[in-house]
Amino acid sequence: MAVILGPNRYGKAEIRLVRVARDAGVHHIKDVNVGSALSGDMDDVHLSGDNSAVLPTDTQKNTTYVFARKYGVDQIEDFALLLARHYVDSQPAVHHARVEIEEYFWDRVPLPGPRAERHSFVRSGREVRTCVVHHDRDGTTTVVSGLKDLVVLNSTGSEFSGFAVDEYTTLQPTTDRVLATEVSARWRHASGASPADGSHGFGESYSEVRRCLLEAFAGTHSLSLQQTLYAMGRRVLETRDEICEVRLAMPNKHHFPVDLTPFGLDNPGEVFYAADRPYGLIEGAVLDDDAPAAHSAWE
Amino acid sequence: MAVILGPNRYGKAEIRLVRVARDAGVHHIKDVNVGSALSGDMDDVHLSGDNSAVLPTDTQKNTTYVFARKYGVDQIEDFALLLARHYVDSQPAVHHARVEIEEYFWDRVPLPGPRAERHSFVRSGREVRTCVVHHDRDGTTTVVSGLKDLVVLNSTGSEFSGFAVDEYTTLQPTTDRVLATEVSARWRHASGASPADGSHGFGESYSEVRRCLLEAFAGTHSLSLQQTLYAMGRRVLETRDEICEVRLAMPNKHHFPVDLTPFGLDNPGEVFYAADRPYGLIEGAVLDDDAPAAHSAWE
Amino acid sequence: MAVILGPNRYGKAEIRLVRVARDAGVHHIKDVNVGSALSGDMDDVHLSGDNSAVLPTDTQKNTTYVFARKYGVDQIEDFALLLARHYVDSQPAVHHARVEIEEYFWDRVPLPGPRAERHSFVRSGREVRTCVVHHDRDGTTTVVSGLKDLVVLNSTGSEFSGFAVDEYTTLQPTTDRVLATEVSARWRHASGASPADGSHGFGESYSEVRRCLLEAFAGTHSLSLQQTLYAMGRRVLETRDEICEVRLAMPNKHHFPVDLTPFGLDNPGEVFYAADRPYGLIEGAVLDDDAPAAHSAWE
Amino acid sequence: MAVILGPNRYGKAEIRLVRVARDAGVHHIKDVNVGSALSGDMDDVHLSGDNSAVLPTDTQKNTTYVFARKYGVDQIEDFALLLARHYVDSQPAVHHARVEIEEYFWDRVPLPGPRAERHSFVRSGREVRTCVVHHDRDGTTTVVSGLKDLVVLNSTGSEFSGFAVDEYTTLQPTTDRVLATEVSARWRHASGASPADGSHGFGESYSEVRRCLLEAFAGTHSLSLQQTLYAMGRRVLETRDEICEVRLAMPNKHHFPVDLTPFGLDNPGEVFYAADRPYGLIEGAVLDDDAPAAHSAWE
Repeated sequence: MAVILGPNRYGKAEIRLVRVARDAGVHHIKDVNVGSALSGDMDDVHLSGDNSAVLPTDTQKNTTYVFARKYGVDQIEDFALLLARHYVDSQPAVHHARVEIEEYFWDRVPLPGPRAERHSFVRSGREVRTCVVHHDRDGTTTVVSGLKDLVVLNSTGSEFSGFAVDEYTTLQPTTDRVLATEVSARWRHASGASPADGSHGFGESYSEVRRCLLEAFAGTHSLSLQQTLYAMGRRVLETRDEICEVRLAMPNKHHFPVDLTPFGLDNPGEVFYAADRPYGLIEGAVLDDDAPAAHSAWE
Repeated sequence: MAVILGPNRYGKAEIRLVRVARDAGVHHIKDVNVGSALSGDMDDVHLSGDNSAVLPTDTQKNTTYVFARKYGVDQIEDFALLLARHYVDSQPAVHHARVEIEEYFWDRVPLPGPRAERHSFVRSGREVRTCVVHHDRDGTTTVVSGLKDLVVLNSTGSEFSGFAVDEYTTLQPTTDRVLATEVSARWRHASGASPADGSHGFGESYSEVRRCLLEAFAGTHSLSLQQTLYAMGRRVLETRDEICEVRLAMPNKHHFPVDLTPFGLDNPGEVFYAADRPYGLIEGAVLDDDAPAAHSAWE
Repeated sequence: MAVILGPNRYGKAEIRLVRVARDAGVHHIKDVNVGSALSGDMDDVHLSGDNSAVLPTDTQKNTTYVFARKYGVDQIEDFALLLARHYVDSQPAVHHARVEIEEYFWDRVPLPGPRAERHSFVRSGREVRTCVVHHDRDGTTTVVSGLKDLVVLNSTGSEFSGFAVDEYTTLQPTTDRVLATEVSARWRHASGASPADGSHGFGESYSEVRRCLLEAFAGTHSLSLQQTLYAMGRRVLETRDEICEVRLAMPNKHHFPVDLTPFGLDNPGEVFYAADRPYGLIEGAVLDDDAPAAHSAWE
Repeated sequence: MAVILGPNRYGKAEIRLVRVARDAGVHHIKDVNVGSALSGDMDDVHLSGDNSAVLPTDTQKNTTYVFARKYGVDQIEDFALLLARHYVDSQPAVHHARVEIEEYFWDRVPLPGPRAERHSFVRSGREVRTCVVHHDRDGTTTVVSGLKDLVVLNSTGSEFSGFAVDEYTTLQPTTDRVLATEVSARWRHASGASPADGSHGFGESYSEVRRCLLEAFAGTHSLSLQQTLYAMGRRVLETRDEICEVRLAMPNKHHFPVDLTPFGLDNPGEVFYAADRPYGLIEGAVLDDDAPAAHSAWE
């Protein structure tokens, strides 16, 4: 038996970057959180502490800020591709780069008067937009876009019955329940370089996938959260050619009707206790049967 | 020397209540977090464990759900008043009730087609609306409304110079900086029972105060965050007759321009590092000089 | 009616400071989080943005680090007193300083061999030690020490019965329950300058107060959490002459016995569900009847 | 192109379970958080909402509590194995079960007097112990034990120099720095059923692996965090025969020496600013070259 080094990577996490673009007195802001992780010929640093192959994580931080100044930050996928390629192209020991970005949304503060809404913003508090880009020395590139913290609720149109029953089952079937979840979704682009030939880019792709997810959640009469999850993924794949796989994680945020019979009252689906823990957790992938190989896309 | 019991209170915190109102097939949801705290003749329970004056916190939870069924939940201040009065009126040992409510906002999921947006919702992730109501056996009632988690940013229009300098000061004055903060605001209503005679209620009051805060933040050319804070409070008081005092806590969420000179680049207010800690913290009250006594409003 | 400025303060929050003391090859670490808040002649900065009375929060950060180098950091109360006095003594516009410190505990990593445990540490994960010091230009000084995140549980020796019952009460009395809480305690020193004449200082005072709280929690057969809270405060006051008031906030972290009867099983106080929300919340003060005035101690 | 269902699983997450064992008046508590996830013949529920193969997540919650009563909870790995086998053995549609448990540690409250420390506990705040067990219908079982939230710091004995330098590198090499990290470690048992033949079980294995990790962290003169990580994994593998692979994730929690030269002071490794973000993140696996196949162990 001998001890060997297995998969490894290192990098800088959570580089908080806010970029202000000034366009003739009207400002635009981009608020992101960047992480990069590099891997490759890294045996020496692990085995003997020889750092000659290690581009410091501090340098990765600097690079992120310098690139924001040099190239700006528009779509997070494009900025992640730029960084990932840079690390692989410029560092011989780096065979693979993974860049992860989160974006936080802001709205303009609505102000009275013409030309008023120029440089004041309020965090919209909507979901967080995400991406993970992998770029390999052999030319393989994968782009996974996503979102998280998207909390949705159907106040009716959800059933759960006909499930397996064993000696530990006490749950009663229901034909009308509240269905609430916090969607974490990631979707893989069929092409690593851009969302699609002739497309309008990652920005439009994001908006449209988000719309598909929301509309499928809202429009599906749900017999189970699994069915809803699958419908959401399928909607994206059937609508957006540039996407070849969708992975979803959806906690079932239980809303229990409060039993008001001790107080002589009924509760016709009106008063709910929103529970924290435990919660159901439904996870699944939906993909095209001819999706290209995923390589390291989901790592 | 003798040991004595000082101020005390007890209650149930964080009662998570979601109410669905069904209006001819169109649903409305109200998502709140309720806490109640009672005080009064409570010496015995502390000194000897005699619980005869103690209405269990479990009962307070039940009461909250029952009242949601009996009376519905519209404006959180009205629901808090209902609960606070109930505890004082029905329990001889309870001389004072404090009810605190947080409200989380939801938007409808936009759907194609007529009559589509009926029972699907997405958490808006905007700020949290808050209220604290105090009701006393002697008839004193105070209502404090508020909001928190309202994150705002001005990308220009903010200076900081002319400050006191001592031997430990290294900060350089600036005539153009990013000003960002997470507003926590609470405002006291002049009348305990309703926002104003002839008013449109607590809902309109909330919307208008929020608008005042945002517009004053965005519209003030800031020489210091204190000045901005005061301008925000003053705007509320000068605009809304029903409000007699505003208290604000505003962390200065520092956005530091990244020094790019080591890389041969300037940074004309474009690339910022958003720091977590430490942060400035500015707190202040603004009030009418003839504001009625606050009693326990701010406890 | 005129708008006026009410109570206000400003400062730097969450200055993270780790100090390493080197004692002949043996290291000692102190890991603290410091916040300072100043108030006084601050009308101008609020009303007109004139910053001449404002010592920047950045300077407060610098001062904290410089003082750590100049004077070291031993007991957090002593370090807070040093900072508070400095701000009031050196800044004419500052009439009042409030300094707040949290301390995180570390243990040495146990290592084999003589002289081994010299510079390696592991976060102990015990409670957080706290203090708040107020110092006023008129010479008034108050010191409040404390702790938080101290989670304790009695698996028996707790009852709850004989409580008030109304139409919304469904809770059943119990003679044996789990009592669990997360203690937040603050205690006021009778003298602002030191824990007591002839004392061994704030360090010993902290250890002894903590011991009193734990022993009273564990040693009290509890008829209510209020009774336990009072016993904890009283134990401190009766044991420690240097303390004149104790304030406690203790959530009742409910542990509900799981109903196993649907599965043909009893549950003799053995299997519990630890609930998150809602929770009971018990707050109270216990003090000496001849305690000196609190001034701003609890602000 | 056709849309197909990819990998999926469902279950109950964060089942909070506290078990009290009563041993002749002396109580023992076990405080855990359990999650189970099942997969197998689940096409129908996704494609058509047919739930006949779905054992409700509510049943999984019940099962967890019932098993705690029937079999007790001793080592978390043993309890996880029990649950995982039950789901696969009893549900024809379930081909694979994954059970994850976290354990929180408690100490006894030290009390004066004989036989005093019988039923009072204080959360130790140490690291969280973890495990993930996979059990497959084909008989494959894998056990991964672990810990997280173990925060450690070396105040000297750490260097970083000789690293790669590019045009974006400004970091200076150092021969003496603070090295701090929050260890997340998981280690795979060579045998799925028990930690080793003739062993003293998962409890002793946990204690010894923890000791190896701490001693290797403290005892390694570090030229890079990667080197330390590898040394920690190697120490476990060389010391504990029952373990065949270790995976570590270690953020580099930067402690920056504060520059005190503007104040005429040096800073000989004494005063540090503990930064939050960004942070380095080092991840790596260390394994025996003859380790058995991992199957789904790391999923």
